[in-house]
Amino acid sequence: MSTDPLVVFTPSGKRGHFPVGTPVLTAARQLGVDLDSVCGGRGICSKCQITPSYGEFPKHGVTVADDALSEWNAVEQRYDDKRGLKPGRRLGCQATVQGDIVIDVPPESQVHKQVVRKAASARAIQMDPATRLFFVEVDEPDMHEPTGDLERLERALRDQWEIESITADVTLLSKLQPVLRKGKFQVTVALNKAHDDSIARVIDIWPGLHEAGLYGLAIDLGSTTVAAHLTDLETGEVKASSGIMNPQIRFGEDLMSRVSYSMMNPGGDKEMTAAVRDAINTLAEEIAKEAEIDAALIVEVVFVCNPVMHHLLLGIDPVELGQAPFALATSESLSLEARDLDLTAINRRARTYILPCIAGHVGADCAAVALSEEPGKSEDLALIVDVGTNAEILLGDKERVLACSSPTGPAFEGAQISSGQRAAPGAIEAIRIDPETKEPRFRVIGCELWSDEDGFDEATATTGITGICGSGIIEAVAELRIAGLMDDSGLIGSEAQTGTGRCVPEGRTNSYLVHDSSAEGGPRITVTQGDIRAIQLAKSALYAGARLLMDQRGVDKVDRVVLAGAFGAHISSLHAMVLGMIPDVPLDKVMSAGNAAGTGARIALCNIAARKEIERVVREITKVETAIEPKFQDHFVAANAIPHKTDPFPELAKITNLPNPSFNTQGDSGGDDGGRRRRRRRG
Amino acid sequence: MSTDPLVVFTPSGKRGHFPVGTPVLTAARQLGVDLDSVCGGRGICSKCQITPSYGEFPKHGVTVADDALSEWNAVEQRYDDKRGLKPGRRLGCQATVQGDIVIDVPPESQVHKQVVRKAASARAIQMDPATRLFFVEVDEPDMHEPTGDLERLERALRDQWEIESITADVTLLSKLQPVLRKGKFQVTVALNKAHDDSIARVIDIWPGLHEAGLYGLAIDLGSTTVAAHLTDLETGEVKASSGIMNPQIRFGEDLMSRVSYSMMNPGGDKEMTAAVRDAINTLAEEIAKEAEIDAALIVEVVFVCNPVMHHLLLGIDPVELGQAPFALATSESLSLEARDLDLTAINRRARTYILPCIAGHVGADCAAVALSEEPGKSEDLALIVDVGTNAEILLGDKERVLACSSPTGPAFEGAQISSGQRAAPGAIEAIRIDPETKEPRFRVIGCELWSDEDGFDEATATTGITGICGSGIIEAVAELRIAGLMDDSGLIGSEAQTGTGRCVPEGRTNSYLVHDSSAEGGPRITVTQGDIRAIQLAKSALYAGARLLMDQRGVDKVDRVVLAGAFGAHISSLHAMVLGMIPDVPLDKVMSAGNAAGTGARIALCNIAARKEIERVVREITKVETAIEPKFQDHFVAANAIPHKTDPFPELAKITNLPNPSFNTQGDSGGDDGGRRRRRRRG
Repeated sequence: MSTDPLVVFTPSGKRGHFPVGTPVLTAARQLGVDLDSVCGGRGICSKCQITPSYGEFPKHGVTVADDALSEWNAVEQRYDDKRGLKPGRRLGCQATVQGDIVIDVPPESQVHKQVVRKAASARAIQMDPATRLFFVEVDEPDMHEPTGDLERLERALRDQWEIESITADVTLLSKLQPVLRKGKFQVTVALNKAHDDSIARVIDIWPGLHEAGLYGLAIDLGSTTVAAHLTDLETGEVKASSGIMNPQIRFGEDLMSRVSYSMMNPGGDKEMTAAVRDAINTLAEEIAKEAEIDAALIVEVVFVCNPVMHHLLLGIDPVELGQAPFALATSESLSLEARDLDLTAINRRARTYILPCIAGHVGADCAAVALSEEPGKSEDLALIVDVGTNAEILLGDKERVLACSSPTGPAFEGAQISSGQRAAPGAIEAIRIDPETKEPRFRVIGCELWSDEDGFDEATATTGITGICGSGIIEAVAELRIAGLMDDSGLIGSEAQTGTGRCVPEGRTNSYLVHDSSAEGGPRITVTQGDIRAIQLAKSALYAGARLLMDQRGVDKVDRVVLAGAFGAHISSLHAMVLGMIPDVPLDKVMSAGNAAGTGARIALCNIAARKEIERVVREITKVETAIEPKFQDHFVAANAIPHKTDPFPELAKITNLPNPSFNTQGDSGGDDGGRRRRRRRG
Repeated sequence: MSTDPLVVFTPSGKRGHFPVGTPVLTAARQLGVDLDSVCGGRGICSKCQITPSYGEFPKHGVTVADDALSEWNAVEQRYDDKRGLKPGRRLGCQATVQGDIVIDVPPESQVHKQVVRKAASARAIQMDPATRLFFVEVDEPDMHEPTGDLERLERALRDQWEIESITADVTLLSKLQPVLRKGKFQVTVALNKAHDDSIARVIDIWPGLHEAGLYGLAIDLGSTTVAAHLTDLETGEVKASSGIMNPQIRFGEDLMSRVSYSMMNPGGDKEMTAAVRDAINTLAEEIAKEAEIDAALIVEVVFVCNPVMHHLLLGIDPVELGQAPFALATSESLSLEARDLDLTAINRRARTYILPCIAGHVGADCAAVALSEEPGKSEDLALIVDVGTNAEILLGDKERVLACSSPTGPAFEGAQISSGQRAAPGAIEAIRIDPETKEPRFRVIGCELWSDEDGFDEATATTGITGICGSGIIEAVAELRIAGLMDDSGLIGSEAQTGTGRCVPEGRTNSYLVHDSSAEGGPRITVTQGDIRAIQLAKSALYAGARLLMDQRGVDKVDRVVLAGAFGAHISSLHAMVLGMIPDVPLDKVMSAGNAAGTGARIALCNIAARKEIERVVREITKVETAIEPKFQDHFVAANAIPHKTDPFPELAKITNLPNPSFNTQGDSGGDDGGRRRRRRRG
């Protein structure tokens, strides 16, 4: 038994004996305890704060005396005077071991701290970013042993931080000498060590201790919006989130029209590439301003995006993605310099990481969903649906994961719907139809009240009631089915058939009147038979994609359904199931994952192991191409009925008793026509 | 014993048994015989030409029958019709083994062919460039197994060429898809595999078989001129050599004035960087035009240069090189993208390699000399001197190599000499003084005749006789010493002391009149006492540097002296030794290495192992800093006498009997004053 004092660290439980006088930081390092330090124990960065505990610790078999650590010293006093140390805290590099001691490492002093995410179901992010700060003291040049400043910096990093070798680009070389001299050969370097690289890159260098932090951007580059989370690379904290419209919209609303624009206009792809890169620069500037940081402190960017945006971001003409066999120029992940993408608003040596694409229609955004939701680690069989203009679908568990994309079209987003609109104030986002009276009540974005509640008119006076957004139209169609106003083929009944004047004729079909403010010059909001058909096409595509994966997996039911995407967060599970968008599962097994793609981007930004993981996962995913699977068409046709022509929905039947009218007076020409057309992919 | 036919390759001597029907190329590959192929055996590149030999080969123990190879086939016939095969040649990928056979691989069919250099003493360059061409057939995209085009290209390179992994930048990605489709998925890629990189970079890609070749530039970036050799990276052949003035001259003639310019003018370093990069682009364009190749086929550039040019090329302010401790920003070799240096005239994905610097005053140019002259492999002790504005000096043998730089100043180049000028037509480059008559005769650049030969006046009528260049002034001073017109302290005698009217008074000293065309409005060319002093300062610095290295090595003589540099090629060994520029050795042990720095650049361009070698060599070189060695001053003072105050020159004494006059009439204040001033470094 050693007679040296015993040091016990919590929460890790690591313990060891150390000679009297050993700094706590040294003991932590020798035991492999995760205790942060940027300055390497020089008492200037304060990252190594610890909390000693005193008294009896039967669990550890230790009694800690009051003098178990060295006395509060001048360095600690100076730091406390300047910045303030929390009560009970010590600096791990200053306090030395004098007797048996129990030391707690608070979360903020851990390098690999965990960032707890809001959604309780999802995993925490463990901090292990590619870029970190290191304070070093570099030897001054010596004429007797001439070496370059870079080589002496490298040696200092090797000796003081065990970093084997570094590389620096010419722009860094040009500032190296003045910064070293300004810092009197004490500098802080930001080193980027990618998971796929054996060498650490010097991203930046500052004289003395750099205290302004390091930041990264997690960017979800969508067809319509570009959303970014500015993340502190030391704490994982999101300092600001912001989004802007994708300026490529002016070249085409959906992805296929952008591909067409490129095919029809020589150099059109370059225009679109320049536009989106500009937008990302603008976004980076704005978000840095909002967070009140210097944009040059943004040293990493992670992108997730669909394949067309992926190619347009990279400057690759997406023409091949518009036609079979939908060949990607590259499918694997990319580690690039930010300047390769003309990202000039941030640090000029910043790095970017783009997640791998799964297939020609299943992009890095879907990979990010897989990273966030981890179907490959699921005990039960999970169906994960990222509903956008295309639906990206993952099905899997620990055994195997499959993926496909299905061309739902933009109906779920309110486009191609007669009263459809984007989710914006004034849009109906939720709707209920009384099964007895057949009367609707609804809620609009921007107001918490239902339309039959007091004060609704006043509350919506400024926005008005302008149309129906994506979640609204899904609920409306499902409610029509629940209320018996629409039959399972999707036909809306006439006033005579349904007994309500809300069902109004429109040509040879009927519409359901939701709201009429035409007397006041406002819109007349109806759900038309055409709207139903559009939703049927979309939901059939989604369901058919899911079924195709289930076929491939050899199952006819799944254990749970995860709705990802901003849209997923607003879909009512019940209505989605009544509509037959998703396979039948118990309602409590339908969950929303929020913006899972954005979360995946944040994970890849904060943790390099996650990059390696998703690259492996994507390689192992079974890719299913809906466009060439004959069964997709069969599934599509069968899914046209609401909820479904042949598949039973036993869980749905347990909680709702759908009426079964038939409004078809012209033979069996109901909703099946959609299946006869060959669908065109949409962005 | 195998009953399969025996195949013997010459010149390698490699042999093995192969089944009947084995293509010769396959046999060569299995035996590791160096037989080239770009198309991988598809009969389209014709790089694998071989010469079969028939008859008795007792040495190999083989009798080769006439039908030992398969018959001439249609592919060979087609190639012969189109391009012509040399008599006796076959295509190694088409001819198959039918019986015992002896096969010669001609030099041009070897990948690692040797390029024989002109100077017999120097080593041949073995071709092993970083960038090579590979023809591949890539799988077409398959919706059932979606992968990116880049990933399929990588797989093809792995399967067909055993190249493990590749990387491509975004500009390559943007052309990948159209080129693959244009070539019907048969393409040629240029892959760069650096010696310090584990991954191969796709530099460019062409549809089908690319037959226009690949080129590299070896650039010797001097303070005064920038010289480039455009080299065929397949054959090693120099297609064109060209040079231009370094435009930085407008910021300062020598390197120190450029450093000063940078110190005095904020942004001055950036101006100089931009100027030299522009010049390199111009040079690249011109040299490509001269060789009638597309400049985009230049895929590699190797630079050698002194430390100040090194920093200015890289965009690093050279201010630290102008003051002790002369710290380099980086001393190790650099592998960069050409775009990092704004080299836009060549392939946009071209790579550059910059040799390592040895110390703050001993640059990559000296490293290139070490690569070319290989002192570290020398059996005898070699002193290698690269004479420029600074002299770079290497001393070594197999045991150990030392290096230093010595501030000779520009006198050796004709600067600071009263009648001095650059080496250009009209400049006196050689001179002899008759020991009896004390009359001079000389030769000028641009004319083969001596001035006392018939036709000299006519031959020099257009250029005139305009001044004395570097080699001319060295010879003039040495000849003055040999003719007894100047004593060993460097004093020129008066007419009275020497008995010749050529010695004319000039103030309190004497000058020697070489040529007077002032009557015809031309110059009056003299060697003044000031010129002698300038040459003494320069030669003392050079000799002192060499002596310092000899001290460090513990020797007082060397076995041979190598004069490198364009200047070295024009110095007469005898005169250099009379002057005491170099230590005493037998005259036949003084040799010129020509432009050794440029040769070193070519070696590094053509052979990647050489890059690794010079990096190792430079690390192992003992660096000696003349500025801080007290003995340097002592050596400098002692070397002021001509040839030397104290060191004996026994070898010189064997071949010339120097007269020993003394023209000092004012006590001992001869040539030693130079040693009292602290020398300032010059570029």
